Amino acid sequence: MLVKKLKETYESMDQQNICIQGWVRTNRNSKAVGFIECNDGTTFSNVQIVYSTDLENFNEVSKITLGSAIEVEGTLVLTPQGKQPFEIQAKKVSVLGLSEHDYPLQKKRHSFEYMREIPHVRPRANTYYAMFRLRSVLSMAIHTFFQSRGFVYVHTPEITGNDAEGAGECFTVTCRKDDQYEKDFFGKHAQLTVSGQLHVEPFALAYRNVYTFGPTFRAENSNTTRHASEFWMIEPEMAFADLSDDMDCIEEMIKYCIQYCLENASEEMAFFEKMIDKDCIQRVTKVMNSHFKRMTYTEAIEHLKEAKDQFENQDIFWGMDLQSEHERYICEKVVNGPVFLTDYPKDIKAFYMRINEDGKTVAACDLLVPYVGELVGGSQREERYDVLVNRMKEMNMEQETLQWYLDLRRFGGCKHSGFGLGFDRMLMYLSGVQNIRDVQPYPRTPRNLVF
Amino acid sequence: MLVKKLKETYESMDQQNICIQGWVRTNRNSKAVGFIECNDGTTFSNVQIVYSTDLENFNEVSKITLGSAIEVEGTLVLTPQGKQPFEIQAKKVSVLGLSEHDYPLQKKRHSFEYMREIPHVRPRANTYYAMFRLRSVLSMAIHTFFQSRGFVYVHTPEITGNDAEGAGECFTVTCRKDDQYEKDFFGKHAQLTVSGQLHVEPFALAYRNVYTFGPTFRAENSNTTRHASEFWMIEPEMAFADLSDDMDCIEEMIKYCIQYCLENASEEMAFFEKMIDKDCIQRVTKVMNSHFKRMTYTEAIEHLKEAKDQFENQDIFWGMDLQSEHERYICEKVVNGPVFLTDYPKDIKAFYMRINEDGKTVAACDLLVPYVGELVGGSQREERYDVLVNRMKEMNMEQETLQWYLDLRRFGGCKHSGFGLGFDRMLMYLSGVQNIRDVQPYPRTPRNLVF
Repeated sequence: MLVKKLKETYESMDQQNICIQGWVRTNRNSKAVGFIECNDGTTFSNVQIVYSTDLENFNEVSKITLGSAIEVEGTLVLTPQGKQPFEIQAKKVSVLGLSEHDYPLQKKRHSFEYMREIPHVRPRANTYYAMFRLRSVLSMAIHTFFQSRGFVYVHTPEITGNDAEGAGECFTVTCRKDDQYEKDFFGKHAQLTVSGQLHVEPFALAYRNVYTFGPTFRAENSNTTRHASEFWMIEPEMAFADLSDDMDCIEEMIKYCIQYCLENASEEMAFFEKMIDKDCIQRVTKVMNSHFKRMTYTEAIEHLKEAKDQFENQDIFWGMDLQSEHERYICEKVVNGPVFLTDYPKDIKAFYMRINEDGKTVAACDLLVPYVGELVGGSQREERYDVLVNRMKEMNMEQETLQWYLDLRRFGGCKHSGFGLGFDRMLMYLSGVQNIRDVQPYPRTPRNLVF
Repeated sequence: MLVKKLKETYESMDQQNICIQGWVRTNRNSKAVGFIECNDGTTFSNVQIVYSTDLENFNEVSKITLGSAIEVEGTLVLTPQGKQPFEIQAKKVSVLGLSEHDYPLQKKRHSFEYMREIPHVRPRANTYYAMFRLRSVLSMAIHTFFQSRGFVYVHTPEITGNDAEGAGECFTVTCRKDDQYEKDFFGKHAQLTVSGQLHVEPFALAYRNVYTFGPTFRAENSNTTRHASEFWMIEPEMAFADLSDDMDCIEEMIKYCIQYCLENASEEMAFFEKMIDKDCIQRVTKVMNSHFKRMTYTEAIEHLKEAKDQFENQDIFWGMDLQSEHERYICEKVVNGPVFLTDYPKDIKAFYMRINEDGKTVAACDLLVPYVGELVGGSQREERYDVLVNRMKEMNMEQETLQWYLDLRRFGGCKHSGFGLGFDRMLMYLSGVQNIRDVQPYPRTPRNLVF
């Protein structure tokens, strides 16, 4: 029987016989009685198994090591006075697989660094056990949100001949040991995608509302707590939508995801609140109930100028790229809640963003949230062919390889908008976990490729 | 207003004013009246727009080209006698974006080969328009099936240091132009994953039931209609499950996915039935209502021997790898329905499959279905450390890089099973589309990397 099911139905099962399988989280005992905390993988919290010398193999059971797989037959007993609402009094405990002496988890706190070396075992440690279920729940929140609104999920390619934004360094994909790519598998240079956006835009011009949700890659040689070489992105794109529609969608999505996770990963979120970040539930609940304010970049610069003494980087000027400390100041001190900054200088944004009438700014938005700063970046896309071509020339971009993308503007183009959400950062935001390496099953970072 | 919404509510909207945006699929007209078939991306079928010389810009509208984006304001009129239940009598038609003279789609059938050269435009052609929505619907079917059963979705890595099965050639991921991988980004050789299975198994030993759903890669230099260099796989893994449990899950999943697609992509499936494969709905409906039979490989060989005259490859012997013609014979002629072949000779299967008591066969299953042959492959995994180590030695596999995988057998191991479903092949199976290049948004095959 699955423990998840048991937890939903235990009240009517007093004194009934049941059988469960699971892994031993703790095993303590005296000469006559013992207690195993057992987890079968289906819910966050454990089930308590009580065993006594009535067991034929009491001696064996009392020595079952942490992490071992067992099967327990026994009687469910309601324990209204206990910490848990029921326990299982064992009639038979079978060892399915012992964990040997070098099992890398012990009943103590291990450092995050240590855990990153053992990605094959750490899902059984509480923090990761909570995290990777939250990851699954948030994934489903994303899909449910978009599918229920008619968005079509598009698998944009991982291997591409285009470098989406000219931004970020790319991994080469090759079958060769030299750079004669014309003789390579694809007959030309191929690389891992840094964004699905350019590839998903054509689908918005067919299905109106679409989204990607898949892996993306950056070969940036920087070791920070917020960057990984492989990470998952969500990139929705909406035809006939302007920047304001875009922000409406972002706001609705963020709120939906928070609510979905609070409802469907409640034990996990409670764990994060208790052990990782005591404010996390309060913080995301507040965001869920906020109206997301909107402020132009130009206004934000004015606010920052007034407060520049507070920053490490005090050189505040129109045209600068905002640092994390600036972003956090705006949402934490000025707005005291989530805020969209809009209409950024074109020179610090990507080539495909729509130029505003002032000729200096683009119809872009970044969603800043307290605690982490930027969570989502979006924009209305430049749908005017000539303007886009000029912008690419200005930025010294090669037109030829992106002619297909330009042509979308000549083949029934229309206004459209979209955004990108870093899935892993959203997990960090929800849980309060500070390092992207601790929200990914197998994090890949410079000089770090475990298994 | 979205056309999808309109189709659900039109009966109560006779004579009401509405506004829609969409793309022109056809535009035909006489001197006084014209008809535009318009598609707004939200449903498969078009809406008919009727316009007349009452329009100020009748002349302009009559020349609107195929593929152009338009906005229409008009009156909804019920047309109980017509082919469609309602039409829109236009009061105002605005051109949002014309498609220019070189728009690559015309009102005629284009070859599949031609369409593969224009992946940025083909989603607007009927076959692809139906396919990529079906792709999205099937994705959601997969997630809904597993999540509603408590399976945890795991993002296994795309970049890996392991070659999962020793099978299949791999793409190298590099930042270098030579093979000095010790100086490379990760400090060692890195490649694109060919399977998430080995990486997901540890998660089954934490969460019991898990699944992957993500891109995988093969650098095989073979041009067939069923192989792509990049494709999506679903790889579930279940702890405490044996081969029989595995087959139960596969059967339930396939039936669920068929039903979900018939319900949620009914227009698209009807299109495939009409234009691509007249048997497709009947075929999958029959599978949905079948009991999936189970037959050992050894029995299958006996059947094939009796019928060997019928095959191109007539050399039938125990130990051979079955060809597609053999697989199809078994399910189409012998069973007349879906069938699991089980207990294959160990020498033609992967190292991680559990050795049966006979010492010759492994606890593997392939699901064969009429029309395509193999659709799913699964197995119970070898959970006995020593047996697995011996098997790897037998196969001359290096133990060191997979020691972490072996260690799962020493750290609370238990019986577990899983399978792999090729997502793209499932789409081919559902739709009757014959070439994998026509079910993927941007197919990647040898010497073929469009955009």
